Amino acid sequence: MMNEELKDKSIGIVETKFFTFAEPPKELLLDGGQKMGPITLAYETYGQLNRDKTNAILVCHALSGDAHAAGFHAGEKDPGWWDTMIGPGKAFDTTKYFVICSNVIGGCKGSTGPSSVNPKTEKAYGLDFPIITIGDMVDAQKYLVDHLGIDKLLCVVGGSMGGMQVLQWVASYPERVKCAIPIATALKHSPQQIAFDEVGRQAVMADPDWNHGNYYGQSQPEKGLAVARMIGHITYMSDQSMEEKFSRRLKEKNYSFKFTTDFEVEGYLRYRGDNFVKRFDANSYLYITKAMDYLDLSGDKLNPSGKKIETRFLVIAFRSDWLYPLYQSQDIVRQLKTGHADATYCEIKSTYGHDAFLLESDEETRLIKHFLDKTFLGYDVKRT
Amino acid sequence: MMNEELKDKSIGIVETKFFTFAEPPKELLLDGGQKMGPITLAYETYGQLNRDKTNAILVCHALSGDAHAAGFHAGEKDPGWWDTMIGPGKAFDTTKYFVICSNVIGGCKGSTGPSSVNPKTEKAYGLDFPIITIGDMVDAQKYLVDHLGIDKLLCVVGGSMGGMQVLQWVASYPERVKCAIPIATALKHSPQQIAFDEVGRQAVMADPDWNHGNYYGQSQPEKGLAVARMIGHITYMSDQSMEEKFSRRLKEKNYSFKFTTDFEVEGYLRYRGDNFVKRFDANSYLYITKAMDYLDLSGDKLNPSGKKIETRFLVIAFRSDWLYPLYQSQDIVRQLKTGHADATYCEIKSTYGHDAFLLESDEETRLIKHFLDKTFLGYDVKRT
Repeated sequence: MMNEELKDKSIGIVETKFFTFAEPPKELLLDGGQKMGPITLAYETYGQLNRDKTNAILVCHALSGDAHAAGFHAGEKDPGWWDTMIGPGKAFDTTKYFVICSNVIGGCKGSTGPSSVNPKTEKAYGLDFPIITIGDMVDAQKYLVDHLGIDKLLCVVGGSMGGMQVLQWVASYPERVKCAIPIATALKHSPQQIAFDEVGRQAVMADPDWNHGNYYGQSQPEKGLAVARMIGHITYMSDQSMEEKFSRRLKEKNYSFKFTTDFEVEGYLRYRGDNFVKRFDANSYLYITKAMDYLDLSGDKLNPSGKKIETRFLVIAFRSDWLYPLYQSQDIVRQLKTGHADATYCEIKSTYGHDAFLLESDEETRLIKHFLDKTFLGYDVKRT
Repeated sequence: MMNEELKDKSIGIVETKFFTFAEPPKELLLDGGQKMGPITLAYETYGQLNRDKTNAILVCHALSGDAHAAGFHAGEKDPGWWDTMIGPGKAFDTTKYFVICSNVIGGCKGSTGPSSVNPKTEKAYGLDFPIITIGDMVDAQKYLVDHLGIDKLLCVVGGSMGGMQVLQWVASYPERVKCAIPIATALKHSPQQIAFDEVGRQAVMADPDWNHGNYYGQSQPEKGLAVARMIGHITYMSDQSMEEKFSRRLKEKNYSFKFTTDFEVEGYLRYRGDNFVKRFDANSYLYITKAMDYLDLSGDKLNPSGKKIETRFLVIAFRSDWLYPLYQSQDIVRQLKTGHADATYCEIKSTYGHDAFLLESDEETRLIKHFLDKTFLGYDVKRT
């Protein structure tokens, strides 16, 4: 049952749709050099596309997200992952805008990924799925946007890996993005970010149940994936938010003097790890983290044409985010300014760490609502 | 063969010794309530104990350290883990001082730990080894110090978990420590530190070769322990030191588009992980991290008598250390000042992260040499 209070401000019941592209183009040319097709994208839309098709916003999800960004699936009690931001009167106001969110390729929430059936073998791809990049994810999204008949997106927005897709959209299709909002993200992963991803991948691959990616229809590599997710969770929070949430509180009155769960923080991590494996595919975890590590839009690569960047930018970062530190968002702004872009940098004083992009909705709404409305109103007004 | 350049400034060839205590005391009463014995401690000493036995310095090692702190073992080419700090003319000058270092109980480098033979079963303890605390480690060290005939240590020093032992020495045996140097450490682990330790433990325990701790004489849980160590390594470095050491440099010219090692940082982590499992026992990793998580000397617990703390303190922290952040060292100083201790706080501007305590020898030497000499000279001078 849907939560009644949330329902009032929600877009309501929504459904995931599917778009498969086979021809044209028959196949997607991947950055790795392989051709791939047919490809299916799971996506959802909220609000109505206007007659001029000028009010479309593409929301890009993070590592473990999906197409279900807002509203409720029938019979479910939790809304989509960014429901606080998308709906009537919200930052992405569905009474004005047409919001699209699609699951990335390589994912496991309806879009083609390593757990999908390979038409050539009629078995799950597993490691036969090609390595994909953020560029490939965006190319696939572009076909969806074409399919919806949208020439130019009013806005592309997303946090973390979602923000990487935002940057990639502007690098790949600058003429198709009116404004862009990359949140808590980076032009490229630092070695520390690569290192955390690599340890997560090693944890999955160390699990014998992973079986070189060949585990479909058998035991999932649950323990390995749970460890990977636990590492992730530590990096998503801040030292301070962990202190506020758990401190050194114990599950029982005293230390157990056993290797069981003594501290609440341990119980939380185990719970989060165990929960994740029920809803996420281990191979998708490998492919998506690899795509993030491969991204490099530093230097000229954000603006390969060298022309003035016409897309307006709002770059948002969070003070306590140590996984995607402030300097990475500042680097984005520096790169945009080199391309003479209209770019605003906003630092939000949050203690939530990287998770802030999902939690600081009030602050984000204040910043985004105005930026978006101004862009929309000025849609046909040539800047002088 | 020993490195000739290092040899010149080294204490030279050293040997690990062993001290077993059975009676008295027949057994060690552990914080967990169990009695345990006999217990063996592996230890090394450098320099000569003076006639008055007033020049003894106890060096405490970190998580993966051992008794071999300085000099060379015959036939080996690498010196002990703190050879830059211990030797003739060095911070801990072996021409003046008598330096002791012992492997902690629970360890796997010669002291009694989970890989030792349980005299009751004549098999390795495994998980029958009792959970031990930093307090238990220090109690065992105290018997060694007694055995060496030393009434009062001139100094107890150590970084990271070594620093925890330093603090515990003052909490447990304040009258036996003239001065103390806790480096890059904390009175208690924060939930973030517990979380990193817990994920490491989960990685070990997720490995089927761990077999509930019963793997001696069989396959070691190498993959799980390697993952744990990789996580550790990320936390020991700083974002900046990783950038300086690896940046985004690739092993080959281009991306592999496979799940092999693309980035140098990945290769480094895998190498460090694989190397660690050759020299460390997985169960010891569990026991020692648990001991660190259990330590809590906050509030009155550092100074349970409530009397003036007579031990002189030099507290050292490193700016880029995000695993044991500055505020934790500042908390130590605050707690010491509450006990009216003579405590100096020194912050070293290093980019090495937590590893700085092993790497910033020049800075540490400058601070420690003077502090130590002053303490030694003033040994019998009552402060007014």
